[in-house]
This record gives sequence, C-alpha cells and structure tokens, in this order.
Amino acid sequence: MKKHNFSAGPCILPQEVLKQASEAVLNFNDLNLSLIEVSHRSADFVKVMDQARSLVLELLDLENKGYSALFLGGGASLEFLMTPYNLMKENGSAAYLDTGAWSSKALKEAKLLGEVEVVASSKDKNYNYIPKNFSIPAGVDYLHLTSNNTIYGTQIKEFPKTDALLVCDMSSDIFSRKLDFTQFDLIYAGAQKNMGPAGTTLVVVKDDILGKTGRKIPSMLDYQIHISKDSMFNTPPVFPVYVSMLTLQWLKNMGGIDAIEKINIAKAELIYNEIDNNPLFEGAAVKQDRSNMNVTFLLKDESKKERFDQMWKDAGISGINGHRSVGGYRASIYNAMPIESIQVLVDIMHKL
Amino acid sequence: MKKHNFSAGPCILPQEVLKQASEAVLNFNDLNLSLIEVSHRSADFVKVMDQARSLVLELLDLENKGYSALFLGGGASLEFLMTPYNLMKENGSAAYLDTGAWSSKALKEAKLLGEVEVVASSKDKNYNYIPKNFSIPAGVDYLHLTSNNTIYGTQIKEFPKTDALLVCDMSSDIFSRKLDFTQFDLIYAGAQKNMGPAGTTLVVVKDDILGKTGRKIPSMLDYQIHISKDSMFNTPPVFPVYVSMLTLQWLKNMGGIDAIEKINIAKAELIYNEIDNNPLFEGAAVKQDRSNMNVTFLLKDESKKERFDQMWKDAGISGINGHRSVGGYRASIYNAMPIESIQVLVDIMHKL
Repeated sequence: MKKHNFSAGPCILPQEVLKQASEAVLNFNDLNLSLIEVSHRSADFVKVMDQARSLVLELLDLENKGYSALFLGGGASLEFLMTPYNLMKENGSAAYLDTGAWSSKALKEAKLLGEVEVVASSKDKNYNYIPKNFSIPAGVDYLHLTSNNTIYGTQIKEFPKTDALLVCDMSSDIFSRKLDFTQFDLIYAGAQKNMGPAGTTLVVVKDDILGKTGRKIPSMLDYQIHISKDSMFNTPPVFPVYVSMLTLQWLKNMGGIDAIEKINIAKAELIYNEIDNNPLFEGAAVKQDRSNMNVTFLLKDESKKERFDQMWKDAGISGINGHRSVGGYRASIYNAMPIESIQVLVDIMHKL
Repeated sequence: MKKHNFSAGPCILPQEVLKQASEAVLNFNDLNLSLIEVSHRSADFVKVMDQARSLVLELLDLENKGYSALFLGGGASLEFLMTPYNLMKENGSAAYLDTGAWSSKALKEAKLLGEVEVVASSKDKNYNYIPKNFSIPAGVDYLHLTSNNTIYGTQIKEFPKTDALLVCDMSSDIFSRKLDFTQFDLIYAGAQKNMGPAGTTLVVVKDDILGKTGRKIPSMLDYQIHISKDSMFNTPPVFPVYVSMLTLQWLKNMGGIDAIEKINIAKAELIYNEIDNNPLFEGAAVKQDRSNMNVTFLLKDESKKERFDQMWKDAGISGINGHRSVGGYRASIYNAMPIESIQVLVDIMHKL
C-alpha cells in the first residue's frame, strides 16, 4: 500500500532521489564501487560536494554575493554552539527571539559564551504565535531567529530589520519559500527536512562577518577553517551530502524555490481550509503565524478520536500524531510531500 | 570488472552490508518507507540504535563493565575537542603521544583547554615508528594515544600502563584485533574504516570518569548528556548508524574479533612477506611497529613505477597510492578486504 509520510523529520524525500541514492550505495557513478566506500578525496566525490554547495547558493540566489555554503556534521544542535563561537565577541552579547523548544536550546548554548538577551518569547501561550514589534538592544553582536517552529506549527512571515548580524535557524523551512536571503548573515539548517537525510547540516555564511570576535575557536567549530578547506576539513558525511545534492538538483529541475513555493502554498491552503471549515477541527497556531511546513491541529470532539485515528491509519497515513507538548495532530508537508497525500488526509477529515 | 578497493577510508565494506543498506534506502524493515525518511524516534530506528550500541560493547567484551557506547555526529575530529572538554580539569593537563598527523591534530585542540605535554614523538623519522619507554608526567588528567596511524602504516602493539586515564583514538583499527579493552577509559573511532560509512563516530566511555572536571560543557560536547539520552540527544546520523549496525552484525556472525584478527594477521603476513622478500620493494614503517591495517611500502626502482602502476590499474586495483607525506604505496586492508584481493596485488608485485 502507498504510504503517506507526514513525519516531522527525518521526513519524506522525492522518490526519484531515494532510487538514485539506493543505486549509488551499490554502484556510484558506474565506478563499480559503492558511494560509501570511495575516498572523499576522489574526483567523483569532490564533484558531489562542489555541486551541493553551488546548488545551495544558486537556489537561494546568493551566488557571487560574498556567501559560502558548507555541509558539516554534528547536526543543527552543534550550530547552536558554533554561532556564538564565531559571531559573539569576547564579553559580547547576543539577542534571541524565543519561539519554541529549538530557540530555547539555541540560546542555552550561547549563554555559555556571553550575555544573552531574550528580546521576546511566546512561551506564555505555549508558543502558538510569533512575537512581533519587539525591540532589539543596541550593540548586540547578532539577533538569532528560528524561522519555522516544527513542534508548534508557527513560521516567521516577516523578518525584523536590525543593525546587528541576522542569524536564522531555517532547519524546517529552508528551500520552501522565496525570501531575500541577503538579509541574513548566517543561515543554518539540519538536512533532514527539505534537503536530505539526517547527518549533515547546511551552513550559509557571509564571509566578511567571520574572524572578528577575538576568540580562539576550536578547529571543528570554526567556519573560516571549514570554508578554507572547501567543506572538507575532515571527512564529511558522504552519504547525507550526496542525497542532499540529489534533492537540491531535483528542486532545481522542478523550477527552484519559485516553483516549489507555489506548490507549498496550495498544499497548505488545502489542509488549512479544511481545518477552518470543518467544525470538528481547530488549528493550534494563530492564523497569521501559521507554518506552511507543519500544520498543527486539534480534534475538538475527543469521542471521535478513535475513529479518526483508525481512518488515517487505514489509508496508509503515518507520522501525524502531534508533538507531546502540543497534542492533537501535526501534518508535516515538506517540499517532497505530494498534494495527493494531503488530499487523502483532507478527505478523511471531511468524512469524519 | 571486480574492483579491489584498497582505499584508506572511507573504504571497503562487506558486500552483503552494501546490499542491505541499498535495499533499506528504498524499503526499510518492510515498512514501505525509506530508512532515511522515517522518524529517528520510530520504534524501528530506536531498535537500530540500541542494537548498534549493544553490539559494540558485546564485540569489545565490555558488557556490564561500566561502559557506554555512543554514535555521534561530527567525526573523530570533533572528539579531539570533546576529549579535553570532558576529561581535562580546569587548570589541568594532559599527555599526548605524537605518532603522526592525527595525534598532532588532537593535541592542538587540547591546547585550547589546558596544558599539553607531548610525552614522545616520532616526527624525527617522519613517524615511521612508535616511540616506546617514554615517561608520563605525574598528575596529568589523561594520556592520549592513536592506536593506528593510517598515513605512516604504524600501529601500537603494546599499550603503556599509567595511573592517568587512558584515551585512545582507534579510528583505523577498532574491531580488527583482540585487546583488553578495559585498559581504556575512553575510545573513539570515526566509522569510515572498519565500521561503516563516513558520518558517525563511535565513542566508548567508562561512565564513572565523567562529570569530574568542574567545567561547563556545551551540551553537544558533553558525553554525559548523550549517554542520558541514549545517543539520541539530537537527531542522529541515521544512515551511517544503520550501516554501522549492519557491519557490526556481519562481524559478530563471522565470529567477532577473535575470528577477524586471525584473518587480518594472515592478510598482513601475505603482503609484508612479499615486501620483505621482493628486492624491488621495501616497507616504509619499522618492522616491529607495522600496522596490520595500512601497509605502506616503497618501490626501490623508480624506473619500474610506470609498469607497476599500469599493472595494478589493469587488475582493477584502486586506492593504493601512498599519502603525499610518505610517498610510495599504501594498501589498506581493513576487516572487509578479502584476502583474494591482496593476493591479486601480491601476484603483481611478484611478477614485476
């Protein structure tokens, strides 16, 4: 039976990418060797890394604008530490917008290196909205944002203007919508939503902001070292980088972010319309801050829960239980999720 | 044509493991979902992580002896930093044995956190031997060793006794030979030699040595945090961990380290005998310190180089050029390398 995979991440990837990845594990580039047993210094893999990095800058429209793209190991959680190491001056400070669990984890690590100002938080309402009109203290080294909050289903629609460096964790919505990416100085994103499998993290950083903190940075945490080694300072996570390259190529072939954004809007409208028009359901996040990637919703009549759960399971739907801190349901509808799968879910909600 | 992959890492893996991994990328555990698109919190993947961790302790004979096994991201290069963060006291010191490029990189990171004593170095002879009979300063927090030096083809055969904690980077020879692993307090190893694909690092640590430095450790660098979360503090590198689990299972099925050690000795003897008995070749490392994983050797008659290179290329051999800092040739003969492939190389050396 066809599966409809609404998992929040690791999550659905394009079927053609999975096929290519599976083949490469047996025979990479017709070398009669597996992708995972060739040297990362071989011409064939160096080309993969170069392509992946180029595709990132091309898709984000950041080519020749002073940015570098890196594919690192360790996960976005390691970027929580690398951000202050690379951008917070000795005795410096940083501002964080607290929009959920991931922002909170990010600012916790920054506190080890300097002063952290939380400019606003939506914790008072279990993070069901994005705080706005907050003021940013003068003199902070950077402002840190989380663009999309997977657990709560909220998404920043407009980014604040600031004199400080603008840092954004885009783990769960990168490559999903058009933005002026030049407004950001540092973007990072774990691969396992819109980009690839778990095990690599994309970093896009403006070169000229680096090397200014006065800190001694451990080699593996130093963006400048990784840039100087073309993202190969140490053995990179070969398979996750390869699959990310394939997914970025897939996105480019389908028309890039312009094209996928239109599809993502249609997909989100389909399910949000059902939530808003069906008296059995309600959205968990406030309307104006709703995420187009993670749709959180509640069933108002608990007596129907058993029936609803059976219906979507019978239809081959998986991964739509809400996070324990919000409850209800969460439909993650990342780039690779076909609108047909969302229609299956919407039909079930309608029939309930 | 069959390939004989002598790559130093990423390197050859068992064919049956590659087949299983390729299948799982399309359909994992008959879920009709790819391994790389299911949640890392799903029962199926949690079982993979648990099995991988258990197999490590079982194969190293460290079960119920107070050790934990972790599969982390970031590469062994990140362990160069995590080791002092977790084991070096505030204002403490550590001893490092310098046996090559990787030891040097490891001690460089430790210097950021405290005093580093280099107890001995074989740099004077381009690291072609393992220093012995060095003294270890009293009061150091730990002694750091690199058990096998891929570039130079040397391997520590006997480990020093010390009152300090014993830390060993076993990236290139773990699971290849019998040792009393209880003599070590911390072992780490990048997966991409004997264990799996690039992208995950194994850490085996004695629980009761942790939490004693007085340092505030960033979350992602803190072994205690990773242990408390069963190696799932953040999204783990799913595919590399899965393939490592398969490889460890393969090793267990063939009889574990006892069995593979015998095979590895036979493989190493086959090629070292040819090097020693063939007047055209000489070994690069001193005999008593020769590695059973990376066999470094030189062609004494440069005029034969073109012919030799053509012969092994024609036979489907790849990855045997020596590292630029040593020159000559390097045959990496990790666990998954069949003796038949080594015989092909030896026959060519003999015919030259």
